[in-house]
Amino acid sequence: MGHRLADASTPARLAAPDEGIGRDELALATRNHGLPLEALRYDLTPPGLHYVLTHYDIPYVPEDEPWRLSIVGRVRHPLRLDLADLRTFPQVTTRVTLECAGNGRALLTPRPVSQPWLVEAVGTAEWTGVPLRLLLAEAGVEADAVDVVFTGADHGVERGVEQDYQRALPAAVATGSEPEVLVAYAMNGAPLPPQHGHPLRLVVPGWYGMAHVKWLRDITVTDVPFTGFQQAVAYRLRRHPEDEGEPVTRIAPRALLVPPGFPDFMSRARVVRPGPVTLEGRAWSGRAPVTRAEVSTDAGDTWQEAELAPDDGHRWAWRRWRCTWTATPGEYVLSARATDAEGHTQPLEQPWNRGGFANNLVQRVPVLCLDGDAAE
Amino acid sequence: MGHRLADASTPARLAAPDEGIGRDELALATRNHGLPLEALRYDLTPPGLHYVLTHYDIPYVPEDEPWRLSIVGRVRHPLRLDLADLRTFPQVTTRVTLECAGNGRALLTPRPVSQPWLVEAVGTAEWTGVPLRLLLAEAGVEADAVDVVFTGADHGVERGVEQDYQRALPAAVATGSEPEVLVAYAMNGAPLPPQHGHPLRLVVPGWYGMAHVKWLRDITVTDVPFTGFQQAVAYRLRRHPEDEGEPVTRIAPRALLVPPGFPDFMSRARVVRPGPVTLEGRAWSGRAPVTRAEVSTDAGDTWQEAELAPDDGHRWAWRRWRCTWTATPGEYVLSARATDAEGHTQPLEQPWNRGGFANNLVQRVPVLCLDGDAAE
Repeated sequence: MGHRLADASTPARLAAPDEGIGRDELALATRNHGLPLEALRYDLTPPGLHYVLTHYDIPYVPEDEPWRLSIVGRVRHPLRLDLADLRTFPQVTTRVTLECAGNGRALLTPRPVSQPWLVEAVGTAEWTGVPLRLLLAEAGVEADAVDVVFTGADHGVERGVEQDYQRALPAAVATGSEPEVLVAYAMNGAPLPPQHGHPLRLVVPGWYGMAHVKWLRDITVTDVPFTGFQQAVAYRLRRHPEDEGEPVTRIAPRALLVPPGFPDFMSRARVVRPGPVTLEGRAWSGRAPVTRAEVSTDAGDTWQEAELAPDDGHRWAWRRWRCTWTATPGEYVLSARATDAEGHTQPLEQPWNRGGFANNLVQRVPVLCLDGDAAE
Repeated sequence: MGHRLADASTPARLAAPDEGIGRDELALATRNHGLPLEALRYDLTPPGLHYVLTHYDIPYVPEDEPWRLSIVGRVRHPLRLDLADLRTFPQVTTRVTLECAGNGRALLTPRPVSQPWLVEAVGTAEWTGVPLRLLLAEAGVEADAVDVVFTGADHGVERGVEQDYQRALPAAVATGSEPEVLVAYAMNGAPLPPQHGHPLRLVVPGWYGMAHVKWLRDITVTDVPFTGFQQAVAYRLRRHPEDEGEPVTRIAPRALLVPPGFPDFMSRARVVRPGPVTLEGRAWSGRAPVTRAEVSTDAGDTWQEAELAPDDGHRWAWRRWRCTWTATPGEYVLSARATDAEGHTQPLEQPWNRGGFANNLVQRVPVLCLDGDAAE
């Protein structure tokens, strides 16, 4: 009759066929949120519109509470830095498109039961902070370093395992400059909002969100591979529970449309009137620069090339695209598709895995074009 | 074979018994979001944590686009004001707790199919703007005024009706000072974020969110009662579809707990260790000041008085409360209950209506207290 942690946790599972979204998934959906797709119009996503996923609770950090970042483990000079110390290092600002590894999960069949994203778990911001490689150089990483482990202040239990949120990067990535990993203290020029990691977070341009550890308080260099829950259990691409699986790392290409016209409140179906309609949106890839965006108005049977905005030098941020569609009365399914310089693109059939990770199925936007003389 | 607006809309309906949350409800839940309940710790909710409900799309208003507010209808001097004009009027800042009229809807049986809130559709901010009564006095309201209609820039269709979002206040409320209604241009000292109505919104302290029209562009004084969709069709308390129903107006009392301990990622169940646990939260009512907050650890069978924080003079904002619970190993359901100066309180049985509006059923927070020596 003991009361143990395992009693609070539910195991990983797949939804049954036709099983609606459950109370547990809804509880995640009401607290986390995606980018309302019309906000794809902003180059920089306003902080309250940027997607947010919090594994446990958002830590409450009073304004006057000191915050220390430890850099320890296989280093010659362990460091303990406050925010003023961090500001003595060179400062870098990078525009980064951040996407949740679970984006698209709720559209999969069968549906992995977890945060039920449709396609909206994305956002772009300018993050300012210290290059991680400079902090690690100051600490003096030992030659036998294998992984660098990042620990956040958010605390909870997941599948029976009590934990502070922790993720690692390979030492070569953490000390490298492609991408330039940041220990960030500002978002769009202001201190980090609570839900984005106040006061410090990691930013790993090109990688899915699980790598960008929020409320960062410890960096530990290890000489053995990190096997924590979020590295070895969660965030792996597996088809069967017993698979070892591949780790989730860089963001696969994706394009999203600004839904045209106006919506129905409840169905979210889109309505347009006949005539020229500008179709626009964003495309990104964490693997290589986006080189192509295409649009379909017939659910992917045929594709039209969209015009990519000129390269603005923001390698790690989404790129705007647009084209014109001449709408005539009828029902349509609009889609967009991104391709990157390495030839990665998006599938029309779902790329399925048990976690619903790194799934970049093309978006489907049902649109109704009204009769020209519709008086209703 | 016509293509009409009605084809994009779904009618109002109730979910079948045991019907899971649908794709349409999920599409609303992923774009709108509640207050993560741990953020009840903030006196003022950071903007990205404040609840958001958008009926249609968030209008995109470029920084340099001029915005005009019209004040027309039954007035002697119609006005057309830009933001600089508004700043020439006296400025008032009011701390307001704002709650969605549909808060709690997804917990009802049967469940009205709409935005599926659990209990988190709330937030508190300081809104700065011009008292509406001063603008109406400048325009000179005619003696036959009945309603004042507020029109936002968000456009969509709802149950077959294409519309800009519109709501009215009785002329006596709009020209009164209890509450002091504001045409607000700032939230917590900064320009309104896009999702909170940039650049202008109405703020009606004590009323549910549907009255606080965002992206406000027109105020029309009428000599007949306003019968627009959001006034006469939606936002009414009805038990049967054919009922005329009562309009939704002021916020019923509610108390919410900061969930104690730490959560399981998926179940959101809370875990605490044995010993003293501070239980704290907020209580509010739009009808009268909160005079009492109580806490139960046995699902409402017995109640303990909580200590209310001293009155801070913010009549329209939530009030903090706290008490201490000595947890022993076991399973609990925590609840909180608010009572206001007019004796309104919260029910233990659901107050049901077809829209799921103004429902202030007491919150239930399942908590597991671990064995003292739990080593897991």
